[in-house]
Amino acid sequence: MPNKYVYFFSKDFTEGKKEMKNLLGGKGANLAEMSNLKLPIPPGFTITTEACELYYTNGKKYPEGLDKEVLANLEKLEELMGKKLGDAADPLLVSVRSGAAASMPGMMDTILNLGINDEAVVGLAKRSGNERFAYDSYRRFIQMFGNVVLGVEHDKFEEVLEGVKKKKGVHHDLDLDTNDLKEVVAQYKVLVKKETGNDFPQEARTQMWKAIDAVFGSWNNDRAIKYRELYNITDLKGTAVNVQSMVFGNLGETSGTGVAFSRDPSTGENKYYGEYLMNAQGEDVVAGIRTPMHVSGLEKANPAIYKQLIEFKDILEKHYRDMQDMEFTIQENNLFLLQTRIGKRTGFASVKIAVDMVHEGFINKQEAIMRVKPEDIDQLLHPSIDPAEKYISLAKGLPASPGAAIGEIVFTAEKAEKMAEMSKKVVLVRKETSPEDIGGMNAAQGILTATGGMTSHAAVVARGMGKCCVAGCSELTINSDNTCRIAGHTFKEGDIITLNGTTGEVIAGALKLQAPDITGSFEEFMKWVDEARTIGVRTNADTPKDSIVARKFGAEGIGLCRTEHMFFEGNRIEAVREMILADDKPGREKALNKILPMQKDDFVGIFEAMNGYPVTIRLLDPPLHEFIPHTDRELKELSESSGVDFEKLKDKAQKLKEFNPMLGHRGCRLAITFPEIAVMQTEAIIRAALEVKKQGIDVHPEIMIPLTGTEKEFIYLRDIIVETANKIFEEKKDTVKYLVGTMIEIPRACVVADKIAETAQFFSFGTNDLTQMTFGYSRDDAGVFLKDYLSKEILPKDPFQVLDQEGVGQLVKMGIERGRKTRPELKVGICGEHGGEPSSVEFCFNAGMNYVSCSPYRVPIARLAAAQAKIKKG
Amino acid sequence: MPNKYVYFFSKDFTEGKKEMKNLLGGKGANLAEMSNLKLPIPPGFTITTEACELYYTNGKKYPEGLDKEVLANLEKLEELMGKKLGDAADPLLVSVRSGAAASMPGMMDTILNLGINDEAVVGLAKRSGNERFAYDSYRRFIQMFGNVVLGVEHDKFEEVLEGVKKKKGVHHDLDLDTNDLKEVVAQYKVLVKKETGNDFPQEARTQMWKAIDAVFGSWNNDRAIKYRELYNITDLKGTAVNVQSMVFGNLGETSGTGVAFSRDPSTGENKYYGEYLMNAQGEDVVAGIRTPMHVSGLEKANPAIYKQLIEFKDILEKHYRDMQDMEFTIQENNLFLLQTRIGKRTGFASVKIAVDMVHEGFINKQEAIMRVKPEDIDQLLHPSIDPAEKYISLAKGLPASPGAAIGEIVFTAEKAEKMAEMSKKVVLVRKETSPEDIGGMNAAQGILTATGGMTSHAAVVARGMGKCCVAGCSELTINSDNTCRIAGHTFKEGDIITLNGTTGEVIAGALKLQAPDITGSFEEFMKWVDEARTIGVRTNADTPKDSIVARKFGAEGIGLCRTEHMFFEGNRIEAVREMILADDKPGREKALNKILPMQKDDFVGIFEAMNGYPVTIRLLDPPLHEFIPHTDRELKELSESSGVDFEKLKDKAQKLKEFNPMLGHRGCRLAITFPEIAVMQTEAIIRAALEVKKQGIDVHPEIMIPLTGTEKEFIYLRDIIVETANKIFEEKKDTVKYLVGTMIEIPRACVVADKIAETAQFFSFGTNDLTQMTFGYSRDDAGVFLKDYLSKEILPKDPFQVLDQEGVGQLVKMGIERGRKTRPELKVGICGEHGGEPSSVEFCFNAGMNYVSCSPYRVPIARLAAAQAKIKKG
Repeated sequence: MPNKYVYFFSKDFTEGKKEMKNLLGGKGANLAEMSNLKLPIPPGFTITTEACELYYTNGKKYPEGLDKEVLANLEKLEELMGKKLGDAADPLLVSVRSGAAASMPGMMDTILNLGINDEAVVGLAKRSGNERFAYDSYRRFIQMFGNVVLGVEHDKFEEVLEGVKKKKGVHHDLDLDTNDLKEVVAQYKVLVKKETGNDFPQEARTQMWKAIDAVFGSWNNDRAIKYRELYNITDLKGTAVNVQSMVFGNLGETSGTGVAFSRDPSTGENKYYGEYLMNAQGEDVVAGIRTPMHVSGLEKANPAIYKQLIEFKDILEKHYRDMQDMEFTIQENNLFLLQTRIGKRTGFASVKIAVDMVHEGFINKQEAIMRVKPEDIDQLLHPSIDPAEKYISLAKGLPASPGAAIGEIVFTAEKAEKMAEMSKKVVLVRKETSPEDIGGMNAAQGILTATGGMTSHAAVVARGMGKCCVAGCSELTINSDNTCRIAGHTFKEGDIITLNGTTGEVIAGALKLQAPDITGSFEEFMKWVDEARTIGVRTNADTPKDSIVARKFGAEGIGLCRTEHMFFEGNRIEAVREMILADDKPGREKALNKILPMQKDDFVGIFEAMNGYPVTIRLLDPPLHEFIPHTDRELKELSESSGVDFEKLKDKAQKLKEFNPMLGHRGCRLAITFPEIAVMQTEAIIRAALEVKKQGIDVHPEIMIPLTGTEKEFIYLRDIIVETANKIFEEKKDTVKYLVGTMIEIPRACVVADKIAETAQFFSFGTNDLTQMTFGYSRDDAGVFLKDYLSKEILPKDPFQVLDQEGVGQLVKMGIERGRKTRPELKVGICGEHGGEPSSVEFCFNAGMNYVSCSPYRVPIARLAAAQAKIKKG
Repeated sequence: MPNKYVYFFSKDFTEGKKEMKNLLGGKGANLAEMSNLKLPIPPGFTITTEACELYYTNGKKYPEGLDKEVLANLEKLEELMGKKLGDAADPLLVSVRSGAAASMPGMMDTILNLGINDEAVVGLAKRSGNERFAYDSYRRFIQMFGNVVLGVEHDKFEEVLEGVKKKKGVHHDLDLDTNDLKEVVAQYKVLVKKETGNDFPQEARTQMWKAIDAVFGSWNNDRAIKYRELYNITDLKGTAVNVQSMVFGNLGETSGTGVAFSRDPSTGENKYYGEYLMNAQGEDVVAGIRTPMHVSGLEKANPAIYKQLIEFKDILEKHYRDMQDMEFTIQENNLFLLQTRIGKRTGFASVKIAVDMVHEGFINKQEAIMRVKPEDIDQLLHPSIDPAEKYISLAKGLPASPGAAIGEIVFTAEKAEKMAEMSKKVVLVRKETSPEDIGGMNAAQGILTATGGMTSHAAVVARGMGKCCVAGCSELTINSDNTCRIAGHTFKEGDIITLNGTTGEVIAGALKLQAPDITGSFEEFMKWVDEARTIGVRTNADTPKDSIVARKFGAEGIGLCRTEHMFFEGNRIEAVREMILADDKPGREKALNKILPMQKDDFVGIFEAMNGYPVTIRLLDPPLHEFIPHTDRELKELSESSGVDFEKLKDKAQKLKEFNPMLGHRGCRLAITFPEIAVMQTEAIIRAALEVKKQGIDVHPEIMIPLTGTEKEFIYLRDIIVETANKIFEEKKDTVKYLVGTMIEIPRACVVADKIAETAQFFSFGTNDLTQMTFGYSRDDAGVFLKDYLSKEILPKDPFQVLDQEGVGQLVKMGIERGRKTRPELKVGICGEHGGEPSSVEFCFNAGMNYVSCSPYRVPIARLAAAQAKIKKG
C-alpha cells in the first residue's frame, strides 16, 4: 500500500482529527477536528508533515505519489465546491497555508486567493457580481504570491500601491475603485516581470504547486529556524500544507474577518473577546492598516452571526477543554471558522482560566497545575505595566527582575535614600551596583544598570527584594555631570523613566501600572500546587523583613541567609572596617564584639519570622575588600571618619586587592585565616536561638560553611562552631538543636562529597558559583562573550539563568550520590539563583534534593515548578 | 609465648638484622647488622618500635613483660662487659638513643654516659686513671639528662658552664681542669634541684628507665610530629630505643670521635670523606664548638686506625650496596663503629654514585634509576651556589625556579634589557611580573618578586627559561624611588644580590657559583632512564631557542607552544594593539595580517628544531587587556606612539577590564568572538608547516584550542581551522598532516569529555587552570590563604606544585576515561606545571596518558620520574 500523504476535510468527509497534530500540523488537525464537529469550515485538504520531511530528505523532491494524491484531492474539492481551480467562468480559489505541529506564528508562509489569473478574475467578477472584489483579490494574490513564492520584495508592491493611491489622491485601500485596482494589477504584473524575468504564472495548478513548494521551503527559512531554536522546538518532521477553499471577507459590507478568544487572554475572565473588520481579508487585521472593532460590536451589528460565534466558541472550548483562539470569516452573512487553537494568555489569565475550568468541571487539578507556566506566576507577584498601555521603548537591557517601576532618575544610592525619605519615587541608575548601594536599592522603585548580567549584584539583590531591575543595558552611559544617555537621549537627575523588568525595556516618562493580586484564584491555585508537590521550597532571605515576605509567598524555611548583607547596614560597616583594619586578633575580636549584638538581633527577627521552620545561615562569604572603599577620595573620607591614617588605609586596601576575587580569599578561607569571625557568628546564631526558644519559638538553626573544597576545611570550622556553641550552652544552662553543613559550590567539593559528608550534616548546592567554576565563567564578565555564545548557539541558554544539566548538573548529581553514599540521610538543597528557575527545579527534584531555595518573589514559581515536576514524574 | 620486645646485639650474640628496620628502627637494625658482620660495635640491646607503639596505645604504660626483658638484657650486657650499671667501683656506662625506621635526624632524644652518679664517678676516675674524663662525662651526663629527661632548659646549663669558664678566664671547655669540672657538676646538681624540686637521680636503673621514657616520649614531641608531617612519614609504629655500652672519645689524645661518608656526598667521587675530633664526644662535632679535622688527616696521624676505617667502609658499602654515612669513636686507639646508614647526598653525587655503582657491579640499572630523586636532577641543570660557600640569607621567598643568580638590582624590564645590552648581569626585582616584562626577564640572570606563588607569571616564565627565580618574597617591598627594602635592609638600583632559586633564599652581595654539567655520568644515566620509561616527555616551549634547549634536554616534541608570548616580541605588540583597538573585523584583519608573517617565521624555527617530533600549538589564550597598558601614563605614551586618541584608548582599556580575568573573555572564547584571530594563527601554522616540509623537515603540527568547555565551542573553531587549512592546501597544491585537539582545563570539559572527543583528536590537560577552577583558587591570589592552609594542614601540598590527585586528579581520570570511551585512540597529555613534578608524572603515567609536557629545564626530571613510575608499576 502506498503511503498516504494527503488528508481531506469537509463537512461530510474528513480523514483527520485533532490527535493527528504531529502528522497534519496544528492547523490541519484542528480544521479536521472542527469539520468532524460539523462546524462551518471551508473544505480542503492537508498535505502531511511527513511529506515535508521526505521532501527534504529527498533533496527537495516530492515523495513518489504525492502529486497524484494532491490532484485527486483537488478534484474532490472542485467537485464538492462545484468550481474548478483556474476556471475562467467560475474559478475555485484556495488558500495555501503552512502549519506545523507546534505553533510558530508568522514564521512560515501563507498564500491566499490562489487560482486567479487574467481570465479567472473576469469570471470571479461576474459570478460574484462584484468586480471590485475580484480585482482586489487578484491584486492581493499577486502581491502575496509575488512576495512569498517569487521572492519580489514586499516594499516594491507597496510602492506601486502607494503610487496609485497618490495619483488618485486617496489614503486608504478601500478608497480605490475597480479601475484603480485594475491599474494596480497591471503594474504588479509589470513589476513581477521586471524582478523575476518571467510573467506572472497564469496557470492555476502551476500556482498551486509553486505555493506548496514555497510552504515546504519556508520550513527552513532563517526566521523559522531561529524561532524553533529560540523556543527549543525540536523533533518536528516539518510543516504540513493546508489547501483550503477560500471564503471572502472582502465581498463588501456583509462580509468581514476577525480573531476571537473564548475568554479574555489578558485577565482570564470568562467573556468572549476579539476583534473584527468588515470588508477585509485576514492580513488587513494583522497589518493594522485599519483599526479593528471589538467583537462585542457584532452583537448589535449582526446578532445572528454573533450568536453563532458564541455558540461555536462554547462548542470548541468544551471540546478542547481550554481557552480557544479562533479565526473566522463572514462571507455575505455566512460565518466560517478558519482556524482554532489553544490561546496564548497572560500569567493572570492563565491562573484564572485554569482555576475556573476546574470549577466548571472541564479539567482536574493536576491538569490545571500543568497548564500554568511557572514564569507566568512571576507576573502576578509584581506591579506590572498595564497591558492596555502602548509604548515605544528607548532601550533594552536584561530582564533582571520582573515587574515595573516608575520614578525620577537618581545616580547614587545616597540620593535615592534621601529622595525616598521625602516620599519621592526614584529609579536608581548606576553603571553597576555594589553592596554599599543596598540602602539606595531598597529605597528605589527599580534599578537600572549599564553593565552586569542576570546574576549581577543588582539583579540578585533586586530579585531578592522583589524589586524591578533592568541590568546590563549597554545603551546606557552615565556621565559625570549627573546626567546619563540612554540610546542617544540625554536624561538628567529627576527625569522620569519607566522600567519593565519583565522584558528589560526602558521607557521615557511614566506608564500606567497595575498592582499584583495574590488572592482569589491565585491563592486557590497555589493550595493545589502545594498538595501536589513533594520537594520543599525555602527562600533566600537576609532580613526579618524578607523572611516575612517569603513566608507570605509560602516559603518553608530559609535555605540561605547571607550574613554579609547584614554587615553593611547602618553603622555596622564601621565596626566591620575596624575589624578589617585591626593589626591583630585581639583588635579584630574587639571590633567583632561590636557587631555581635546587632547580628544576634537580626537572627532573632529571622527566627521569629520562621517559627517552626529551618533557617540556614551562611557564615561570612565575600572577600574583605568588598567592605572597604577603593578610590582615594572614599579612602580619604574613611580616614577622616575613622581616624585611621590614610596611608595605612590605602596600604590595606592595596593588600586586600585581588586579581580574581571570585577565586580569592573568601568563603571558609576567610574564617580559616580569621577563626574569630566564625566564633562571633556562631555566638550570634546560638545566642539568638536560645533567646527565641525562651519566648516559645520553635527554632531550627542550620549553620552553613561556604566554599568548602576539602573535608579538612569543613572539619576545622565545624570544630570551632561546635566548641563555641557548647561554651554558650554551658553558660546559659540550655541547649538548642542545630546542624552544621556546607555549601557545595566548588567543583572539587562535588568530587570529594563522600569525604565531606563524613562530617557535614547537610549540603546546599550553590549553583551560581558552581556554574562559574565549572564553566570557568565569571558572571561579572561573561556578558561580553555569552551574547556571542547564545547567538552562535554554542550554548542553548545562559547557564546562570538555567542550570546546565549536562555539565554542572552532572557534578551536582555526583555530589548528591557521593554524599549520600557516606550519609544516606544527608539533607540536600540548592540555594543558587537556579532554585527559582522551573527547569532547574525539576532537575533538583529528579536529582533527589530535599528542597530548593530561591528569592522570596520566586518562591511561588518554585512551588509550581516543583508540583509540575512531581506530576510529570508521576 | 610472650611477645619479644628486646633484641640483643654483640659480637657473639645478635638477634637482629638489617631487614628488621621496621621493628628495630634504622639505627638498631644496622647495629645488629654490623654486629653480625663482626665489626667492632659496642654491645647493647634494642627495645622495639612495637613496644613504643604499645606504650602509646596503653596510655603511656610499658607493655607487660617489657621491664623484665630489659633487665634481663641489661644483665646480659653487664655480664658481657664485666661491669655493672651504677657500680661504684667500675660502672658500666650506656648510651640511650632513639631510632625510628625512617631517619629523622635530631628530632628525637639521645642520652650519653648514663649510669654515672656521685659514687660511680669516683670509680670511673679510678678505673680509667683519668679523673678529668670521669667528671667531664658526669657533667655531660647531668647536662643531657637534665635537659632531655628532666626538662631543664639547655641554656641554664650553658650559663653555669660559662660562669665557671669566665671565673677561670678561659674560653674552651678543654681548658677546664678536673676541679673546674667538679665545680660544674656541683653547680649543675644545684640547678637541677632548683628547677625540678628534686635531687639529680643517683640510682642508675632509675636513670635508665627515665631515659627510656624520655625517648618514647620524644616520638610525639612537637618537632618530631612536624618533621614526620613535613616529610610525609606515616605508618611508623614509633621509635625504638637503643641501650648501648659507651665507648669514649673523650679519654684523651688517643681518643676521638668522627663522622664519615664512604664517598664524597657532594660530588659523588669514590673517595673517603669525613671529619673527626680527638678527645671529644659526638655532640662536640655537631655543636661546632671546635673545628673538626678532615678524616684524611688520620692517615698520617694514626695509619692503623685509618686503615681500619677504610676496611670497614669497604665492607659496609659492599654489604649495603650504597654509599654509607658512618659514626665512629676511637677509644684509646681502639676503633668502634656506632652507626651506619645510607648517606644523604647532593643531586650531582646521587647520579654519579648510582652510575658508578652500576659499573662497579653493586647494583643494576633499575636500582640506579630508583635511587636518584627526580628533584636531584634539577640541581644538575642550573648553575648553583658553590656548596663550599657559607652564607646567611637576608630573606626567603618561594623557590620558584631553581639555580642561582648574581646581579645588580634593576626594577624595570626595560632597564634590565638596557643593562644586559651593556653586558651587565642584573637581577630583575619586581612586585610581580607581567607578560610585558618578558624581555627584561630574559635579559636578567634571575628574577625576584614580592608577590605571587609557585605558578605566578614570574615563576612559570622563569622556569620555562631555566632561569633562577625567587617569587613571593613577602619581606620585599619596592619603593617608588628606585630602591627596595628586603627584610629591613635598603638596596638601591645597582646593588648586587644573589638569589638561590633552589631554596628561595635572597643573599646580599655575590657568592661563588658552579656551572651545570650534563655530560658524563648524567648523560649515561639519562640513557638508562629513557630505556626504562614508556610515557613520552615533551616540552612547553614558545620559541625556536627554547625548542633547541628542550631537545638538548631530551624533549620528544612540544606539548605546549603558547602563541601569546610571541605577541609581545619586538614591534609585534604594536600590531597586536592595533588589532585590539580596531573598530571592526576588517580593521582587525588588517592588523592581524601584519602579525601573520612574523608568527609564521616563529613556527618555521620551532618546526625546524623539532624535526620529526610533534609540535602542539595553542591558539591565543590570554584576555586582550593583557596586551594593553593600564595606567594613564602608559596609555598616554601609547596614545602618542600609536596616534590613537587617548580618550578612546582609555575607554577601550576600561571596557576590556575584567573583575575576574581568569574566568573572563579568554581562551577559545576570544576566537569565537573574533574568529579572524584563529584564521590568522591557523594560516601561520599551516603555511610554516608547508614551508619546512619543502625543506625536508618532518613536521607534525597539532593545533590546540584552549579553554574548551563545551563540544560546540570546539566544533565551531575546528571548522574554522579546517576550512582555513584547506584553502591554503588548495592554494599551495600541497598538504600536511595535522591534528586539531583541545586543552582540557575547565572542570566542565572533564565532565563532557565524551562529547568533546567526538571531534577533538587529542586532549592536553591544562592542570594549572584545572586546579584553579576545581579548587576555586586564583593562583595569583591564593598565596594569602595557602600559607595558612599548609601550616594548618588543611592541604598536604600546594596543589599548584603537586597535582591534587584526590580532587583534580579524579577529574583528570574522568576526562581520560570519558574521552577514550568515545575515541579509544585519543592521544592524551598534560601541559600544566605539574607535567614536570615527579609525583604528578607518576599519576599521569598511571592514568594512561601518552605524554607529559613541561618546561625545558624540567624535561630530564620528568624523564626520570616517568622511568621510576614505570619501574614501580612493573
